[in-house]
Amino acid sequence: MTRRFLAGLIGSGVGPSLTPALHMNEADAQGMSYVYRTIDLGTVSLDPDDVGDLVRYARALGFDGLNITHPCKQVVIEHLDLLDDRARELGAVNTVVFGEQGAIGYNTDWSGFTRAMTRGLPDVDLDRVVLLGAGGAGASVGHALLALGVQELVVVDLSRDRADALVHMLGELFGVDRCSASDVDAIAVLNEKVDGYVHCTPTGMAEHPGTPFDVALLQRRQWVADIVYRPLETALVAAARERGCPTLDGGGMAVYQAVDAFELITGTPADDERMLRDFARLTAS
Amino acid sequence: MTRRFLAGLIGSGVGPSLTPALHMNEADAQGMSYVYRTIDLGTVSLDPDDVGDLVRYARALGFDGLNITHPCKQVVIEHLDLLDDRARELGAVNTVVFGEQGAIGYNTDWSGFTRAMTRGLPDVDLDRVVLLGAGGAGASVGHALLALGVQELVVVDLSRDRADALVHMLGELFGVDRCSASDVDAIAVLNEKVDGYVHCTPTGMAEHPGTPFDVALLQRRQWVADIVYRPLETALVAAARERGCPTLDGGGMAVYQAVDAFELITGTPADDERMLRDFARLTAS
Repeated sequence: MTRRFLAGLIGSGVGPSLTPALHMNEADAQGMSYVYRTIDLGTVSLDPDDVGDLVRYARALGFDGLNITHPCKQVVIEHLDLLDDRARELGAVNTVVFGEQGAIGYNTDWSGFTRAMTRGLPDVDLDRVVLLGAGGAGASVGHALLALGVQELVVVDLSRDRADALVHMLGELFGVDRCSASDVDAIAVLNEKVDGYVHCTPTGMAEHPGTPFDVALLQRRQWVADIVYRPLETALVAAARERGCPTLDGGGMAVYQAVDAFELITGTPADDERMLRDFARLTAS
Repeated sequence: MTRRFLAGLIGSGVGPSLTPALHMNEADAQGMSYVYRTIDLGTVSLDPDDVGDLVRYARALGFDGLNITHPCKQVVIEHLDLLDDRARELGAVNTVVFGEQGAIGYNTDWSGFTRAMTRGLPDVDLDRVVLLGAGGAGASVGHALLALGVQELVVVDLSRDRADALVHMLGELFGVDRCSASDVDAIAVLNEKVDGYVHCTPTGMAEHPGTPFDVALLQRRQWVADIVYRPLETALVAAARERGCPTLDGGGMAVYQAVDAFELITGTPADDERMLRDFARLTAS
């Protein structure tokens, strides 16, 4: 019997996402029949608030699960029956699985970044880490960093309010002594005691060229992780490599959020190395 | 590139339908990834009137098409953008295809019966045919019979009003001289001039044992077609075979409605002989 699965990605501007191909190619390799549809809110003329109806009808129509992305990761929560602990703590869901208990929300941005870090930068110092960007991705990654053992997380964002809000949220979960907010100008002062930088803003994408801080500050002993994956080699990653810093590009998180979602939706382990190779092939073309 | 298709069957009590397996097994044989879901109105706690929302969300969620069955074949029509000529004439849709023109309704009960008759009883006399059952299936089959060349169609139903209504509809399309209504008691009188009987009521199914009329009337020169396919050998078909009449069991229409829907949904021809073999395998087990 062929195993069949049905999933989709709901969000705005999701057309170019590589996640559908990652899921379907892995399913093909495992001999499954897997249909993964892209549901762009703009294309189907729906608002973010309609995500509840989309989730409800997806379940009625036989979907096994959904990925949820911007701008629905928060608003979807009220339409779910259960939340995984991480999704509840983060207040953000990127994966919904339909089962006998109802619609259950997960956050594989969190788990995906965790697995990418563990694989790509397994032995780096974690005493003091600067997190650049306090948006939705920054929240998941900041949580993951503290859970991985970062002793002090410094959150930097162009919006100080947003940085403060994330620090408040993380402080309640991990202790107020382990996280603080700072301004981008203060990085030059902090830098001497920073082990690594993790970048979670759009800077470095084609539409947002540049680096999120002065890369002349980077020292060989520091590591750099970027979650931007278009391009994989951002100006930040390139500068860090040039200086001999250990680096992790955004491909790891992009792949591992899909690895984890695939496993949640199908109930079957994915071959993560195969998905990483597939991602490399997809981004090379 | 694997070709992927997504379809579903909407109706009441559709759980045991063989149509999903027929579609998916044919797709497997063609190397497609095809997910075909069963959406039972009772299971998902929706009413027949909700079929419009189901169709709308199925389209938004990336379905290629739907099969529609009892009790939604009529009510679905107001929610479609276009109708095929046969679906419009019959006022009944069993297949919806989503494309650039919108949601288009078809009736493959009609085309499926036509193909099953053409294949199974290709050379029988069509001067005078009795149609037993004037419900939704009877309407599609009666239309198909007149389109195939039946000169005079006699419609028999336990409800004379229903028989009259179908005769009126068919008379407008094919001419009032080509169809009439009659009572089941009159079959004994009509029988001498009848070439064939086509049966479209539930009689003969496990829950409705028996035959729809007195089979002692059947003569070797007459042919019999049944659309009941559970069991394939109904008491009517068995009696007709015993008397040496050419017969067509309900498997042909069951398979060819799926053959035609498969072709409409995927845009790719099905191997009808393979689907007939698959149906035989599915019903044997």
